[in-house]
Amino acid sequence: MLIVMKVDATDEDVKGVERVITELGYRPHIMPGAARTAIGITGNSGPVDITPFETLPGVAEAIRVTKPYKLVTVDLRPEKTVINVGGDATIGGDELAIIAGPCAVESREQIFAVAEAVKRSGARFFRGGAFKPRTSPYAFQGLGEEGLKILAEAREQFGLRIVTEAIDEASADLVEKYADVMQIGARNMQNFSLLKRAGRARIPVLLKRGLSAMLDEWLLAAEYVMAEGNYNVILCERGVRTFAQHTRNTLDLAAVPAVRRISHLPVVVDPSHGTGKNYMVTPLARAGVAVGADGLIIEVHNHPERALSDGAQSLTLEQYEHLVPEVRAIHDVIAPALVG
Amino acid sequence: MLIVMKVDATDEDVKGVERVITELGYRPHIMPGAARTAIGITGNSGPVDITPFETLPGVAEAIRVTKPYKLVTVDLRPEKTVINVGGDATIGGDELAIIAGPCAVESREQIFAVAEAVKRSGARFFRGGAFKPRTSPYAFQGLGEEGLKILAEAREQFGLRIVTEAIDEASADLVEKYADVMQIGARNMQNFSLLKRAGRARIPVLLKRGLSAMLDEWLLAAEYVMAEGNYNVILCERGVRTFAQHTRNTLDLAAVPAVRRISHLPVVVDPSHGTGKNYMVTPLARAGVAVGADGLIIEVHNHPERALSDGAQSLTLEQYEHLVPEVRAIHDVIAPALVG
Amino acid sequence: MLIVMKVDATDEDVKGVERVITELGYRPHIMPGAARTAIGITGNSGPVDITPFETLPGVAEAIRVTKPYKLVTVDLRPEKTVINVGGDATIGGDELAIIAGPCAVESREQIFAVAEAVKRSGARFFRGGAFKPRTSPYAFQGLGEEGLKILAEAREQFGLRIVTEAIDEASADLVEKYADVMQIGARNMQNFSLLKRAGRARIPVLLKRGLSAMLDEWLLAAEYVMAEGNYNVILCERGVRTFAQHTRNTLDLAAVPAVRRISHLPVVVDPSHGTGKNYMVTPLARAGVAVGADGLIIEVHNHPERALSDGAQSLTLEQYEHLVPEVRAIHDVIAPALVG
Amino acid sequence: MLIVMKVDATDEDVKGVERVITELGYRPHIMPGAARTAIGITGNSGPVDITPFETLPGVAEAIRVTKPYKLVTVDLRPEKTVINVGGDATIGGDELAIIAGPCAVESREQIFAVAEAVKRSGARFFRGGAFKPRTSPYAFQGLGEEGLKILAEAREQFGLRIVTEAIDEASADLVEKYADVMQIGARNMQNFSLLKRAGRARIPVLLKRGLSAMLDEWLLAAEYVMAEGNYNVILCERGVRTFAQHTRNTLDLAAVPAVRRISHLPVVVDPSHGTGKNYMVTPLARAGVAVGADGLIIEVHNHPERALSDGAQSLTLEQYEHLVPEVRAIHDVIAPALVG
Repeated sequence: MLIVMKVDATDEDVKGVERVITELGYRPHIMPGAARTAIGITGNSGPVDITPFETLPGVAEAIRVTKPYKLVTVDLRPEKTVINVGGDATIGGDELAIIAGPCAVESREQIFAVAEAVKRSGARFFRGGAFKPRTSPYAFQGLGEEGLKILAEAREQFGLRIVTEAIDEASADLVEKYADVMQIGARNMQNFSLLKRAGRARIPVLLKRGLSAMLDEWLLAAEYVMAEGNYNVILCERGVRTFAQHTRNTLDLAAVPAVRRISHLPVVVDPSHGTGKNYMVTPLARAGVAVGADGLIIEVHNHPERALSDGAQSLTLEQYEHLVPEVRAIHDVIAPALVG
Repeated sequence: MLIVMKVDATDEDVKGVERVITELGYRPHIMPGAARTAIGITGNSGPVDITPFETLPGVAEAIRVTKPYKLVTVDLRPEKTVINVGGDATIGGDELAIIAGPCAVESREQIFAVAEAVKRSGARFFRGGAFKPRTSPYAFQGLGEEGLKILAEAREQFGLRIVTEAIDEASADLVEKYADVMQIGARNMQNFSLLKRAGRARIPVLLKRGLSAMLDEWLLAAEYVMAEGNYNVILCERGVRTFAQHTRNTLDLAAVPAVRRISHLPVVVDPSHGTGKNYMVTPLARAGVAVGADGLIIEVHNHPERALSDGAQSLTLEQYEHLVPEVRAIHDVIAPALVG
Repeated sequence: MLIVMKVDATDEDVKGVERVITELGYRPHIMPGAARTAIGITGNSGPVDITPFETLPGVAEAIRVTKPYKLVTVDLRPEKTVINVGGDATIGGDELAIIAGPCAVESREQIFAVAEAVKRSGARFFRGGAFKPRTSPYAFQGLGEEGLKILAEAREQFGLRIVTEAIDEASADLVEKYADVMQIGARNMQNFSLLKRAGRARIPVLLKRGLSAMLDEWLLAAEYVMAEGNYNVILCERGVRTFAQHTRNTLDLAAVPAVRRISHLPVVVDPSHGTGKNYMVTPLARAGVAVGADGLIIEVHNHPERALSDGAQSLTLEQYEHLVPEVRAIHDVIAPALVG
Repeated sequence: MLIVMKVDATDEDVKGVERVITELGYRPHIMPGAARTAIGITGNSGPVDITPFETLPGVAEAIRVTKPYKLVTVDLRPEKTVINVGGDATIGGDELAIIAGPCAVESREQIFAVAEAVKRSGARFFRGGAFKPRTSPYAFQGLGEEGLKILAEAREQFGLRIVTEAIDEASADLVEKYADVMQIGARNMQNFSLLKRAGRARIPVLLKRGLSAMLDEWLLAAEYVMAEGNYNVILCERGVRTFAQHTRNTLDLAAVPAVRRISHLPVVVDPSHGTGKNYMVTPLARAGVAVGADGLIIEVHNHPERALSDGAQSLTLEQYEHLVPEVRAIHDVIAPALVG
């Protein structure tokens, strides 16, 4: 941390700050400048709370330097994490991970129709929500355990690994029972009780970025999961909320290299929620792969026009089938860059 | 809802849309224009899902018209809701509600020192968190039930009504047991399981606006609580996340008249989280009252420089004591306007 | 400035940074920490460019400390600036400055009708645009010099001081000829050629904050004007662009105390553009005064429903007449606080 | 446009709205609903001003339907515009347009060193600023005409087409004299006087998106240029301002398909300003091509660590040389999709 003193701070003020730093067990480094004095702090094992300093006499500003996370960082683990799902599929390795399926589980027939197409495309992961966090209390809230059972059946039939969302303690127990990856949705990214529960799950966690999450907050949410012992966390960029209105969210693809620089965790991109518009999903999926993501999570529906939620952004089976070879070809082009 | 057709849409396309509307049980209203045709939809009891229309041939855009909430609206209940708390205090009536106290309960001594000052100021509500949602897993997470017991003691001693946060099912049970108002924090505004739990509580709920919540999303979160039977909801504007960096959040005071126009629920303003800076709390508290809020929720600490969380934004007891008569005087000035 | 080195930075890397700092004529302060080394820089008269450091080997981050402006700051001029307009009116002094009038000058009749009401209210400033920056090339662009002549006539008739916008070199010449204060609009806040021209004007400048301007950018825009020799700058908060859609802009009232802490320049608030909605203007005007602004700039129209631009946010004459005594009463309540 | 009436609107209110519509020369379409009445408006040749309706008795909301631009739209011109620059280079055609060079022209030696590398890469366009809009009045403002002469020399030497920024009337005259494409910067996107001047230029205009520009505002800025007779406009997505702080701007790649759907104008992507970080430029350049942009505009410098502006985001010559074949390979992968 760095303390910047006001222009008119007295020697007494500087000594006061120095004293508080020492009392807290840290080491102060006084740097007198032409106009102002700055004071560096070292000797801290974790982050230093800036609170006690901001209101001391003569202090203009306290600037945090040390990052507040540990387990997620490349400082701790330089090599990238490859997450093994169910023994036969990985996220974070050489292969582009494709997670596809409808927004919500609506019926056995729907799930099997879509899963068949997903399987045929060569993808290894199937998505579909049984517990749907919906903005309105009057909107379809998901089939619950019934939906999970349908997903589990599809796994048996097609050999796909199941990614599905948990929204609270009770649903997390069920997701852990029936599925292969527990998704934590954007609206729950800072539901810390749920993060702790995910940290005790024995399956990997796919953690969506919150609608207005700073990079640090997202990484700290992953840190919550890891701090409980579950090191298998996949981050998912799914768009953030901005002033722009031509999309439902603004897909922040720069988050992928930004995470990569700080963390060893794999990152996937969600161009479906990230745009909210059918016609944008394919171009943004291509862009997500080109920017270096480890995978894509894509909404596909056999009848988007009849979908019970998020139909406007779902690809048709045909659109999905065109997409897969295209993103694979881009992945091949950039593979040497990712290694380098 | 309104469907806008493309310039080159055919008669066949228009008929296709008309057919889908009729099949869904609604009534289509065709409006041919110079360049484009628009089709209005009526006959719906609730909101119409725009999904099925967006991908139909010839459709340029589907625009939602009917608002998706019911119980929160002035359409349903024209007179303003006055919430009675614990039999002797109200929020939403003629009196300005002042809710003051530290961010977190740290000790019995701290709580009693602050509560004594809050009582002396004439405020009727005391705040303090026993369960703290913290961005980092390594930050102080609150005293839990021990903290609630201290708050309950302060209630006995000073006759103040207690407002405190619940973060999950388990903490909600305890908050309901010990406190007078259950606060739902900004990060949990779309934790729908928690909202439903709050809807089953027998005490009022103070619902903070999410960091990037649209007005509709916030009102729908209140609708979740009310749909479960708890009609005593107080809305709280606490700042939103924007590009601006001179404050921790951007306090959106226009939300107060905006809510007022749509809803009968009372609204309070939180200038502490809404700015994150000690020196801004007093001016923004004044502004919150001047804009017409029903109350303020303010962080006060006997030793802000030693606070375990959010000290930088807490008022000292002395600052708080200066604030109260000032905001009361502003409330008196605008009282006739609020009635009118 | 502060350079933070990577965890794995070598002694060689640190020496490399030290060398560059010395070559640039500054003084390096090495602070070895438990995990990382930080290097402070002093000896700079102005801001240090962080560019050369960010790409040096071993550097994790370069953090700017010194602020980049001079003339606007309280460091330079501790007492607040009171701007004298036309010899008989001030902005920044004890009196609340009220600037009222229609968005655009439409006709002599309109201007006189509104100016009469503005005069009657006791306000000293009249606003009205003769050059209108409009988003669409097909929208009404203002009456030009004809409009300025009407404003000048109203000045003669009612003794009000005229505030009106310049949008380029040519219009600035005319505004300087006919008006008392030259307004620079939000969309031109970083039109640096125009700012320099305003800096050579012999009348005060009212500088609106840009739609997405950081505090520093806004103050630096004022610095552009002052650097050319015109020290009479009035800042105007008029709302910023955020995700929120219940208002046209989000009025950021915390900008008022934020500016106050850094700068000696007066600040006024524009609740008309700041909300874009008629029914919000009065409550936000009250809030603007309560937060401590030096004045208000308000759109008033004798026939808002027929206004050629921005009618939806204009007050009627009657609404305006109710507003003025209310904001004056609030100003009286907080006057002691502003002095203290 | 669509007028939505309040729930309690009377028949008299509806008739009042109908009357105003008719008086304005349009045609009203009354659509009574279960709870509310909506009124559609047709018969308008251009956009209808919503102002007169918003304050009429009984009106809840006025919703704009018709888009306010004409010349930029695919409705007007279905085939994509291919812009010919200087007779031998195009933007918007089959070839990926690469525009590369330093942020600012600093010296003849610098320009020639970079231009030589740009030429060698096969790119056809060279960029470099002679007039720099800088946030601070104390920052380097560019070499002016001297800089343009150096660029013109580089054109002679290397046969590259020159793209450079104009910031006002005077610089526009010079840019038109020396360069091949006139760039309008993000901060001037709504400097309407400058847009009109660009509309009278005889060279193409590259129009950067403003920092917080909605899609419509950006397209209307292009409409300003086209309305003056210059139909050769290239749009440039360069990142927008959001709450995110891991980048200087948030590159909004969804803007590319969004523009494509509405407009025939070509769009290029600027990953340099769009991220502000050297290590992000290459991944985001790849993403920009993958999303379907017609070209890239990239900052390259022979000595980024000594650059007088924006060095932190400039690629080295070596990084640039690696980038070009990679983005070309991605362009080849998606070429069939762009045609389809």
